[in-house]
Amino acid sequence: MVGEHAIHNMKVILLKDAVVPITLRAVQFGFSTYEALRIIEGKVVHLDDHLNRLEHSCKGIGLVHPFSQEEIERAVYQLIEVDEIERASLRIQIYGGDEPQLFVTATTILSYPESYYTKGVGAISYHGERLFPSCKTGNLLLNYLAVEEAKRQTCFEALLVDRTGRVLEGTRSNFFALKENSLYTAADDEVLLGITRDRVLKAASLLGLSIVYEAPTLSDLASGVYEQAFISATSMAAMPLASLDGRPFNDPFPKILAIRDLVRGWELQD
Amino acid sequence: MVGEHAIHNMKVILLKDAVVPITLRAVQFGFSTYEALRIIEGKVVHLDDHLNRLEHSCKGIGLVHPFSQEEIERAVYQLIEVDEIERASLRIQIYGGDEPQLFVTATTILSYPESYYTKGVGAISYHGERLFPSCKTGNLLLNYLAVEEAKRQTCFEALLVDRTGRVLEGTRSNFFALKENSLYTAADDEVLLGITRDRVLKAASLLGLSIVYEAPTLSDLASGVYEQAFISATSMAAMPLASLDGRPFNDPFPKILAIRDLVRGWELQD
Repeated sequence: MVGEHAIHNMKVILLKDAVVPITLRAVQFGFSTYEALRIIEGKVVHLDDHLNRLEHSCKGIGLVHPFSQEEIERAVYQLIEVDEIERASLRIQIYGGDEPQLFVTATTILSYPESYYTKGVGAISYHGERLFPSCKTGNLLLNYLAVEEAKRQTCFEALLVDRTGRVLEGTRSNFFALKENSLYTAADDEVLLGITRDRVLKAASLLGLSIVYEAPTLSDLASGVYEQAFISATSMAAMPLASLDGRPFNDPFPKILAIRDLVRGWELQD
Repeated sequence: MVGEHAIHNMKVILLKDAVVPITLRAVQFGFSTYEALRIIEGKVVHLDDHLNRLEHSCKGIGLVHPFSQEEIERAVYQLIEVDEIERASLRIQIYGGDEPQLFVTATTILSYPESYYTKGVGAISYHGERLFPSCKTGNLLLNYLAVEEAKRQTCFEALLVDRTGRVLEGTRSNFFALKENSLYTAADDEVLLGITRDRVLKAASLLGLSIVYEAPTLSDLASGVYEQAFISATSMAAMPLASLDGRPFNDPFPKILAIRDLVRGWELQD
């Protein structure tokens, strides 16, 4: 059953024992990296891409650990076997320092009502820049506070705005805006290199959209320069935004939903 | 004995049981605050100031918890009693979210060889800005990496330089520079409001120095505009810098050591 066990340093443990000492420096300082994945039909979606990005995150912050990609892959499938997992959200987490620790945990799969896709979800803007944009690390206070503020405003996501007023990405998603036949998004080196983002770009090209690597500014978004916008993430695929800071985008969202369907369709092909 | 027990949510536990679940959102996102204190002769140095700052940090990031200052104070003295602590470094840590958790732990007191004070310690400069300058939170990846880089260069501390080239503070210290008869340091709202910083400013005034609330720029420091510089923290009191990025400051450090002595002398008076 999902959530009964976890993997700690290649050993099966009970999930309730997946804990870290608060006296550990890496825990106190958030010197950690992670990946969030999906398991569908007992298969881990785009596992290689996630393991490559995990390694990229570790390299990016100088987190040295002894776990090879092959070992981590084995750990993931060990958890799937012991808990007989068919569908789940999966998390791989590595703490660095003198005693590096690897955890693999699974929870009930994160999924959203179909209405989130047909009606879109609300987003707010939030000023702040992530420390290592291309790495998934434990340095997530900005993301936490931004999402909390979004929830307070009964919104789903907060979009992070940099010091020059550009909307780079969401707290747990990449961000895209549509204008005429073009898809606008931040350049590769400015944001998290989303594994779903890659698929979104491929799907958008297939659908005849031109890709423009230029982050929309908040002021252009606020003044209606873009017709539509959406966010992407492993759990969301492509999810349309109904509004940003209360200003509605045009609906319905046939192109965005077509991107979503292509991205979901590719989940079981690797 | 120091380090045998800990306090968790007002209960005495074994230190080895002071752990947090890695599945907890507050742990994953570093949604936490902390204080580092000193116990000397069984007394907690400046405890009220630390508890006030802890509350300030919680308010600053919207961390709501049920622990009153009186309760935390009782928890601290409970740990001192159960482990018969005379001297130690103490850490109070609060994780936020749906299930707030408070921990109090003690370790062997952090102290430094006298030569660190008579000869000074090396520092490097490191570009980066803390997210909530006045709060002590778990969002510490920048601090971690900056100190690691300092260690690689066989230095003791890294000084954080903001986007405009000003040296605001160290990763675990406040920063001061001396020029003629003046002491330069960043303004209150730009840095951690160090409890030792307060005492340093008071000591400096007593010694006849003028306080100038203006953060030294890295280029002025590099070109020798300041004669001496030092850092302050609970564990250090005032510690002279021998060099910054390899460029030596003038020695010996009679004024800085006089500040250190005054600050240490006030530790047992509250």
